[in-house]
Amino acid sequence: MSRNIKLVLAYDGTDFAGWQVQPDQNTIQGTLAAAIERITGEQVLPQGSGRTDAGVHAVEQVAAFQTESPIPAPNLVIALNDTLPSAIRVIYAQEVAADFHPRACATAKTYRYRIYREDICPPFFARYVYHHPYPLDEAAMGEAARPVVGEHDFTSFAAADPDRTRRIQEANGDEDGPSNIRTIFSSEFRREGPELIYEVRGSGFLHHMVRNLVGTFLLVGKGSLAPADIVPILESRNRSAAGPTAPASGLYLVSVEYGSL
Amino acid sequence: MSRNIKLVLAYDGTDFAGWQVQPDQNTIQGTLAAAIERITGEQVLPQGSGRTDAGVHAVEQVAAFQTESPIPAPNLVIALNDTLPSAIRVIYAQEVAADFHPRACATAKTYRYRIYREDICPPFFARYVYHHPYPLDEAAMGEAARPVVGEHDFTSFAAADPDRTRRIQEANGDEDGPSNIRTIFSSEFRREGPELIYEVRGSGFLHHMVRNLVGTFLLVGKGSLAPADIVPILESRNRSAAGPTAPASGLYLVSVEYGSL
Repeated sequence: MSRNIKLVLAYDGTDFAGWQVQPDQNTIQGTLAAAIERITGEQVLPQGSGRTDAGVHAVEQVAAFQTESPIPAPNLVIALNDTLPSAIRVIYAQEVAADFHPRACATAKTYRYRIYREDICPPFFARYVYHHPYPLDEAAMGEAARPVVGEHDFTSFAAADPDRTRRIQEANGDEDGPSNIRTIFSSEFRREGPELIYEVRGSGFLHHMVRNLVGTFLLVGKGSLAPADIVPILESRNRSAAGPTAPASGLYLVSVEYGSL
Repeated sequence: MSRNIKLVLAYDGTDFAGWQVQPDQNTIQGTLAAAIERITGEQVLPQGSGRTDAGVHAVEQVAAFQTESPIPAPNLVIALNDTLPSAIRVIYAQEVAADFHPRACATAKTYRYRIYREDICPPFFARYVYHHPYPLDEAAMGEAARPVVGEHDFTSFAAADPDRTRRIQEANGDEDGPSNIRTIFSSEFRREGPELIYEVRGSGFLHHMVRNLVGTFLLVGKGSLAPADIVPILESRNRSAAGPTAPASGLYLVSVEYGSL
């Protein structure tokens, strides 16, 4: 009988062309599929809670796949970690109900963005942060982050061509639906030693949305925008009103929630 | 007038073929030389305090080079960091006396070796530790580390072909001399959360010496050797009496000292 296996994955996205399988590209989904095939002999495409872009990391991405294999879940963790490159780790595996789908069942996701603020970024951090040693008004950035909480149309912060993005979303079904309306539960900056960290939790996120939010908050930090500009930018539903896309290296998918909220 | 510039460098050695310049290889020394040439227009080969092997990291490596350039040292830090890949950082630069030589003047060096002990190694640590989740008698390893303190002939822990190593050392002058006698000032294991860390400070180190010490201490941890075996292994002056070379990913050159001891 077919089993539905839920995986919790961590990965260093630096050397991958993102989550989604693509011909002749090194992707997380493709690498995971190859490891599953090697262990079970079955060709399956594990589904994720959502795509992450090239260079984006995961502390906890959730994926699931169907298998006829009787291998117990804890043994699958060991076998997959023996097979996968060290840049991808399976933290946990669990047999779940047949109707569990990592994207469709997700009730919330949390992303984190790490900005390294010291003059010199240690080489051991270079892959894992965005290095921005120049002056930033961090209090203003904290203020700018607050108005995105709530239900909004995030078209201003969606990837540059929303029609194309929407078609991709509909075709692949691996984002949160064709609408650009999302609910954000929390949106906050904090300092952790040399790092300025942005953490955002929401019902779902559009393609590039967290990086576009951070890119806009950085303009506030530099004084090019004021915190009061965020609401009009949201209301304009116009990508060109917001800031540039912040680099991928600082972004982490931190957790995916499946409980009732 | 020619100036002698001392640099303190940090690097992630994972993607480099070690410190020493080699034809058609990506090395720290070669990459640094190219950056210096780009900034000063001068072809120089910066000298290091010693070679680090492929995959070995540095928290603080010391190098020096001669230049006719008038660029002040703080500006050299900025210009070099703008030019170098993010895996190599210049932490500090200083004009020093003409007779300062990073290897010949060094009075002590400290190396650190990081062993990650949890079942699953987070992908963000994979490049920076040796992952060893299997049982180890850590107390016995601590005991085994102590007898290497003092002045000893470390032939048992030198790279496999000591004659060849000695010839290389003599030819390049970038190790601590043709003798295999070194003085170790401290040699200790400690726990830091999920990591077992070995730190060793000495007058100088032979090629592969720290990794061969760690490989031998790991045999003690596994019970294949006893702590009491370390002295006879040292006294045998025989490489085959000691353990294998531990992987490069866990090793860091932590500091180079130039003061009087």
